[in-house]
Amino acid sequence: MEFKIDKDTFSRALQKIQGIVEKRNTMPILSNVLIEANDGRIELTATDLEVGMKSSYETTITREGKITVSAKKLYEIIKELPDETITFSTKENDWVEIRCGKAHFSIVGLSPEEFPYFPKVNEESFIRIESRLLAEMIEKTAYAICFDETKYNLNGIFVKTVEEEGRALLRMVATDGHRLSITEKEFAGAMQSEMAKGIIFPKKGIFELKKMCEEEATELSLGFMDNSAVIKKGNTVVVMRLVDGEFPDYTRVVPVANDKIVTVAREPFFHSLRRMSILSSEKFKGIKMEIETERMVISSSNPELGEASEELDAAYGNVPLSIRFNAKYLIDVLSVLSESEVALVLRDELSPAIVKPAGVEGFTAVIMPMRL
Amino acid sequence: MEFKIDKDTFSRALQKIQGIVEKRNTMPILSNVLIEANDGRIELTATDLEVGMKSSYETTITREGKITVSAKKLYEIIKELPDETITFSTKENDWVEIRCGKAHFSIVGLSPEEFPYFPKVNEESFIRIESRLLAEMIEKTAYAICFDETKYNLNGIFVKTVEEEGRALLRMVATDGHRLSITEKEFAGAMQSEMAKGIIFPKKGIFELKKMCEEEATELSLGFMDNSAVIKKGNTVVVMRLVDGEFPDYTRVVPVANDKIVTVAREPFFHSLRRMSILSSEKFKGIKMEIETERMVISSSNPELGEASEELDAAYGNVPLSIRFNAKYLIDVLSVLSESEVALVLRDELSPAIVKPAGVEGFTAVIMPMRL
Repeated sequence: MEFKIDKDTFSRALQKIQGIVEKRNTMPILSNVLIEANDGRIELTATDLEVGMKSSYETTITREGKITVSAKKLYEIIKELPDETITFSTKENDWVEIRCGKAHFSIVGLSPEEFPYFPKVNEESFIRIESRLLAEMIEKTAYAICFDETKYNLNGIFVKTVEEEGRALLRMVATDGHRLSITEKEFAGAMQSEMAKGIIFPKKGIFELKKMCEEEATELSLGFMDNSAVIKKGNTVVVMRLVDGEFPDYTRVVPVANDKIVTVAREPFFHSLRRMSILSSEKFKGIKMEIETERMVISSSNPELGEASEELDAAYGNVPLSIRFNAKYLIDVLSVLSESEVALVLRDELSPAIVKPAGVEGFTAVIMPMRL
Repeated sequence: MEFKIDKDTFSRALQKIQGIVEKRNTMPILSNVLIEANDGRIELTATDLEVGMKSSYETTITREGKITVSAKKLYEIIKELPDETITFSTKENDWVEIRCGKAHFSIVGLSPEEFPYFPKVNEESFIRIESRLLAEMIEKTAYAICFDETKYNLNGIFVKTVEEEGRALLRMVATDGHRLSITEKEFAGAMQSEMAKGIIFPKKGIFELKKMCEEEATELSLGFMDNSAVIKKGNTVVVMRLVDGEFPDYTRVVPVANDKIVTVAREPFFHSLRRMSILSSEKFKGIKMEIETERMVISSSNPELGEASEELDAAYGNVPLSIRFNAKYLIDVLSVLSESEVALVLRDELSPAIVKPAGVEGFTAVIMPMRL
């Protein structure tokens, strides 16, 4: 194999797969990138057997073929090369030669025959989604993903399509057991049976997908095959094995009997929570909210440091209510919202609370209060 | 004590001392900042008994007095406050009250009587130095400071004034035993006996001093008292206990019999070293330089990865010479230089090498080569 490529293209291509390759050294081939040169294009493939990515780039190929080399080392080398044309070629025994300007590298690779199989993608039954929409929905749910690996069915985002009053909605849900986030948006596209049933995208795949979406605002195609989700955007395909588990019935988590609605301006509420959380304990970040007619007092205290309190204007006309939360949970929700006002929908000091933008549908966060 | 101060001034004042306060919790008072309000100014003092800093700021004082509180917590609180006037006051039992907008904090402090003594500074015998000059000289030597705490006499920069041919020179030297850096600059100022003898500024003090110099390009005053160096700049005074030890005789480390001079362009040399070091072993970063008439070949190899080589143009007319270095040591030197050409002054493959800007006096780095 021999091809020529400009430094910038090769460097960006290698950067893109750094998040995919396996960091642990259990199977050396998984820390390698597969490079295939055919028909005037090179294809770069990386996988950790859970999430895989293949991208292709136009290049000048003088000898077709394929090889695998350490993705990290190759990226380190290419990144440091001068801004000139790079000649990449294979030698005997899986050695690779890289030439650029007067610099010359020989690095040892591994046989491409050992590289895991990457599925052929057939785009026929794919749906098309705007990447901006997907990025926003991931942003609004990912903060609630559970990072406890023993709860494998919560280690991702539950994605489902719903038909409601003739509209096709894409819904995403994440929860870690203490809080839950649901977001949904209308999308133009055909419904699919897998998506209508609901599937769990794995955490790592979600973060790769978000990066892909943020790179460039365009459309991407989404499809399913062999218990995997396939996402295609431009010349890049990502395949991720779906989480094989039952997602909890989130519809039963969202409280329906909450009748006390407090509306506050988001920005002052957000900053007040950040201030008050400084004097909450390091571990629980507990703050107290005392809600009365037209005002809310947020306070915190820490036996070693002292106490803090702040009054905020709030639209509220029900009976006084006092409730405690982990400030981080509220801050996380407020961070992903951009609306100027938010509503807290409460029942009592022990029941789960709803946080959502005031007067806007499509986003619901549920947070468990802290017991005293 | 009670004073009013704007958020921005107080926040920047507290940020400035964060590097000084003690991180370990051995003596709680050392993680506190002493705040004194007198004569229309507040003074903030922090110290870890090695390096101390006192800064003063104009404020509106309604009640004079003093208190100490956690420097870190106070900074966290002030940083998060709205951009309004802050009222800071003391209550009974060393409690502090902070009010800003509708936010209210009560935090517990410690008695100011427990705070260590900070010397009164008498500026009479101080010399004046340009902060830009000092920052540059620190930059050019600090990379060679020894971080091994058992070699306490190398844990800083040796500073000395020298009179040479009627010129007053400020000289700085740092070494970690494997490499040495000397820089000197002419300065306009009276000589002092302590500086003429030579003193060792401690590492932590040096980094604080560099920050101070970089803040604003102006002059600063430098003096000595009770085994400490005192630096004054604007309304800030830094006092650092000098390292009590003998600095090695660096004049004997700089080789005088080196007769082989290679001149190379700095930028290409720097980048080539970075590239070649990728394939050197993680631990030793060893690269090989083969120097011949008008060229230099840099190479590296790693049994697990492969090998790399690159040829550079070089001005050289002596016998061929092959020498090995830790690439990091060369890269560190080239990073602090800005001249377009550098000279390597060598003797043989085992003798210490000199690196300096070609044709410019005032900077000399000495690097030990690596044995095979």
